[in-house]
Amino acid sequence: MTLARRDELEDLEPGGTGWRARWFETIYRHDTPRSRNFDLALIAAIFASVFVVFADSTPSVHARFAGLFSVLEWGFTLLFTAEYVLRLIVVKRPLKYATSLWGVIDLLSILPTYFSLIFPGSQSLLVVRVLRLLRLFRILKLTRYVQESGLLGEALWRSRRKILVFLSVVLTLVVIFGAAMYVIEGPNNGFTSIPTAMYWAVVTVATVGFGDITPITPLGRVVTSLLILIGYGIIAVPTGIYTAELAAVFREDRHAATQEGTICGRCQLDVHPSEANYCHRCGERLPSGG
Amino acid sequence: MTLARRDELEDLEPGGTGWRARWFETIYRHDTPRSRNFDLALIAAIFASVFVVFADSTPSVHARFAGLFSVLEWGFTLLFTAEYVLRLIVVKRPLKYATSLWGVIDLLSILPTYFSLIFPGSQSLLVVRVLRLLRLFRILKLTRYVQESGLLGEALWRSRRKILVFLSVVLTLVVIFGAAMYVIEGPNNGFTSIPTAMYWAVVTVATVGFGDITPITPLGRVVTSLLILIGYGIIAVPTGIYTAELAAVFREDRHAATQEGTICGRCQLDVHPSEANYCHRCGERLPSGG
Amino acid sequence: MTLARRDELEDLEPGGTGWRARWFETIYRHDTPRSRNFDLALIAAIFASVFVVFADSTPSVHARFAGLFSVLEWGFTLLFTAEYVLRLIVVKRPLKYATSLWGVIDLLSILPTYFSLIFPGSQSLLVVRVLRLLRLFRILKLTRYVQESGLLGEALWRSRRKILVFLSVVLTLVVIFGAAMYVIEGPNNGFTSIPTAMYWAVVTVATVGFGDITPITPLGRVVTSLLILIGYGIIAVPTGIYTAELAAVFREDRHAATQEGTICGRCQLDVHPSEANYCHRCGERLPSGG
Amino acid sequence: MTLARRDELEDLEPGGTGWRARWFETIYRHDTPRSRNFDLALIAAIFASVFVVFADSTPSVHARFAGLFSVLEWGFTLLFTAEYVLRLIVVKRPLKYATSLWGVIDLLSILPTYFSLIFPGSQSLLVVRVLRLLRLFRILKLTRYVQESGLLGEALWRSRRKILVFLSVVLTLVVIFGAAMYVIEGPNNGFTSIPTAMYWAVVTVATVGFGDITPITPLGRVVTSLLILIGYGIIAVPTGIYTAELAAVFREDRHAATQEGTICGRCQLDVHPSEANYCHRCGERLPSGG
Repeated sequence: MTLARRDELEDLEPGGTGWRARWFETIYRHDTPRSRNFDLALIAAIFASVFVVFADSTPSVHARFAGLFSVLEWGFTLLFTAEYVLRLIVVKRPLKYATSLWGVIDLLSILPTYFSLIFPGSQSLLVVRVLRLLRLFRILKLTRYVQESGLLGEALWRSRRKILVFLSVVLTLVVIFGAAMYVIEGPNNGFTSIPTAMYWAVVTVATVGFGDITPITPLGRVVTSLLILIGYGIIAVPTGIYTAELAAVFREDRHAATQEGTICGRCQLDVHPSEANYCHRCGERLPSGG
Repeated sequence: MTLARRDELEDLEPGGTGWRARWFETIYRHDTPRSRNFDLALIAAIFASVFVVFADSTPSVHARFAGLFSVLEWGFTLLFTAEYVLRLIVVKRPLKYATSLWGVIDLLSILPTYFSLIFPGSQSLLVVRVLRLLRLFRILKLTRYVQESGLLGEALWRSRRKILVFLSVVLTLVVIFGAAMYVIEGPNNGFTSIPTAMYWAVVTVATVGFGDITPITPLGRVVTSLLILIGYGIIAVPTGIYTAELAAVFREDRHAATQEGTICGRCQLDVHPSEANYCHRCGERLPSGG
Repeated sequence: MTLARRDELEDLEPGGTGWRARWFETIYRHDTPRSRNFDLALIAAIFASVFVVFADSTPSVHARFAGLFSVLEWGFTLLFTAEYVLRLIVVKRPLKYATSLWGVIDLLSILPTYFSLIFPGSQSLLVVRVLRLLRLFRILKLTRYVQESGLLGEALWRSRRKILVFLSVVLTLVVIFGAAMYVIEGPNNGFTSIPTAMYWAVVTVATVGFGDITPITPLGRVVTSLLILIGYGIIAVPTGIYTAELAAVFREDRHAATQEGTICGRCQLDVHPSEANYCHRCGERLPSGG
Repeated sequence: MTLARRDELEDLEPGGTGWRARWFETIYRHDTPRSRNFDLALIAAIFASVFVVFADSTPSVHARFAGLFSVLEWGFTLLFTAEYVLRLIVVKRPLKYATSLWGVIDLLSILPTYFSLIFPGSQSLLVVRVLRLLRLFRILKLTRYVQESGLLGEALWRSRRKILVFLSVVLTLVVIFGAAMYVIEGPNNGFTSIPTAMYWAVVTVATVGFGDITPITPLGRVVTSLLILIGYGIIAVPTGIYTAELAAVFREDRHAATQEGTICGRCQLDVHPSEANYCHRCGERLPSGG
């Protein structure tokens, strides 16, 4: 529900009656068969257009199908432009949609093709279209996954402050070890500047370890080992935070689920410990719990 | 038990009486000494044949023992062919076995050798034979490990929806960051196409970090650091999900193993230690626990 | 609170009355609007000076703005020198401040610029100034984050002995596998000495895997696989330790916040939901919870 | 206590009275001041000798101090030989010590120096001496760390079967993906044999990612991404297993600790649930728990 609260499109209202109201239902809501078909067609079109962008970015494929891809890209762009215009027409306050996150993404996903008429090469910005795939999450929320992702999001929301504290500890380590390694190894061994050394420290402390920059001097290797062992130790912290919060969320969730039907006859409280005989708020004997 | 439910071979029936029923027991069941010996011999043969495939794939070893390996491969192929034919004969509905997962694996593990007569070189497909090692799990299920893997599988089954939600978040990150890095770094720095950049993003967000493709530009390194820190943060999520579910499964397992029907006759307390004879709240002798 | 206990600056006292007491409040305390403004200005100055050090370390930027950076570095150095002198003047026992961790960091962050007059090039030691950013944590402690980091620190403090045991196991693995790989792979394959092989073992067991040193021989690869699988298995241990302690700390935190002294007068039950007015076992009104 | 149970040296008995019994106490036990001093001296000597082996393996250091190191190595070897002989003399059954794990390590740590008289170069085997550092754990067990490592070991022991199931799943993945990548990428891209491909799969699934072997073909990269995502998902499993067991061990430990003094007057049972009024084994009312 934390995520749902931020969904700006929920608040939009139809821009009239008749066909505008019907189309509004179709393209902004997800609960009628008609709107469900629209969603499926839209998702399919987004997937196909993203696939074309992906394929077109691959040199060997581009060399053979450049013409076909150009036609397809214009086709999808015109289709999405029509959809964008329709969205503006059927909604009550078009500006509210246009300035919402979704409206901006929808606009950005059609502009690059038009820009490419003036500035050749700007087509590579079409990759922004992949952001439209995020729409999948909006639609998923209407299925059985909504509760699951609600729990995961709730636990994430509760642990946000602790994870921020943790991230600031990690960033402090990155700054200190990055600066230290810049002094120890120096520009000759790949640590060309403090920001570069900090990039290396992030890559190392998170156990990614690309190996594009590695310590050469004995002291640098000792300091690196220290950083790695610290990183290995603190990799536990976000896991610990999240697991503890998630366990609490699970417990509360089950708790709420097991008490269904056990409502205090006097004060209507509907959350009771599983072993309760009496309502702990007003002292009334519980109907079925006894 | 989740895993057991999917075991298609459990449902098969013997194709007759006499020797066919006896051989059916031997090769499809695992509870008589005779079938146990058959299992051990089969596992040993599979291990040996897989070992030959492994060794034959090593250039230096192949150079010296090519002839021996060829003989051994034909030997194992004929042996497994005989086993496959026997399986078809002794079962009531041979087609049901042949179309089951196990039947397909059994067939695939003998075909490449025959194919190599027509198309030289197809012997390398013999590696499919390693899949027969999965049979070990079927046999392990009959030992003390069945309960343990049952618990692990149960927890995995319960968290499947949450892990799918998590994986879709990871895939969204991979698509967005992959596309962004393709635009930022470009083909000259190894990010030759969006799919390649997505492969890089998977390798990076999961903290593998091969280092075959690495960012060079300052902006690319900043974006990489961001991706790594996000990956470092969300590495906790599957662990948290699984741990919370596993803890619940453990608790229920202990509970179920000890509590069934053990309710104190006097005070109705229904949570007792597994070894309890008397209710620890009121001192009443427990009905079934004693 | 574990962290707060170690804060040496809390114990300092003003070095007099009048302006000295006022300035002491301003620069050593964080609870008046005046001191809060001072903190913000100081943090801004530290951030700016660290940014200059970072930018100056980047060759391409240094080439263009060397003169400007030199002026800025002297400006910040004089500013921090003035602050350091002021800190010494307004405090009762200047030596106690000067020998505290914070005093030493403050001094080290201004010395390199003066040293560079005598020894050119020692300016790169200015990176020590990043340590002043740690001050952020002292100020953060006065906000809502203090409780969160207190819980995280408490759990870390409790698990310190277990984590030390774990680290000594890891170090033993590193020594044994490092020595083994030195013998197996030898200096020709990059394992030039036992300390180098131990550095490689740290990089490997913590799943960083730079790839600057990798096994070539078959035996070396088998031993490496073994080390990796062990590392993969024990990566769980610090997480397990920390999660278990953190969950305990969370539970106690919630418990302490709600349960103190709330015992049912009739049945003596002493575990009640935080919002309880009545005992949920016997229905008696709770003494202090109401 | 799981670990303690395996300590073979605990069962040894002194080989006589007088000086032999006194020396036995000194070198085999850890509870008198005299034996404690012996332990410290021995640990110091082991550390020093290991340090010499480390330093001697470093080419640049070896070049300068080869003579000194040779003398030191002979000194330590003679010292440890004297200790070994003394251990054999003062114990009742010398063969039992000599064939124990510790006895074998003690012997192996002195032999290479003598061997180097016959086979020059075998001195590099001296690295086996690092195993003597494991003795530190025996001595640590006598301090406050014994309880902590006991809990960690107990949780590890309990989860051994589940971790074995998990490891066999990982190994199956390694075999299947290794064989698949050998077929997909082939010897030209570094996957020179199935065992090599399996080494690569271990390095990848455990998120180490050296980068010495990486996929080049698009299909290989898709399969690699799949392997990485699976590895990312199952990295949770050992953590989940261990955390759940560790939490249970912690709970029982605290439980046991809170019951001190609560012993049933009739059946002497000394482990009761915290809320128990009556012994749950024999029904006797508990003395202090009520």
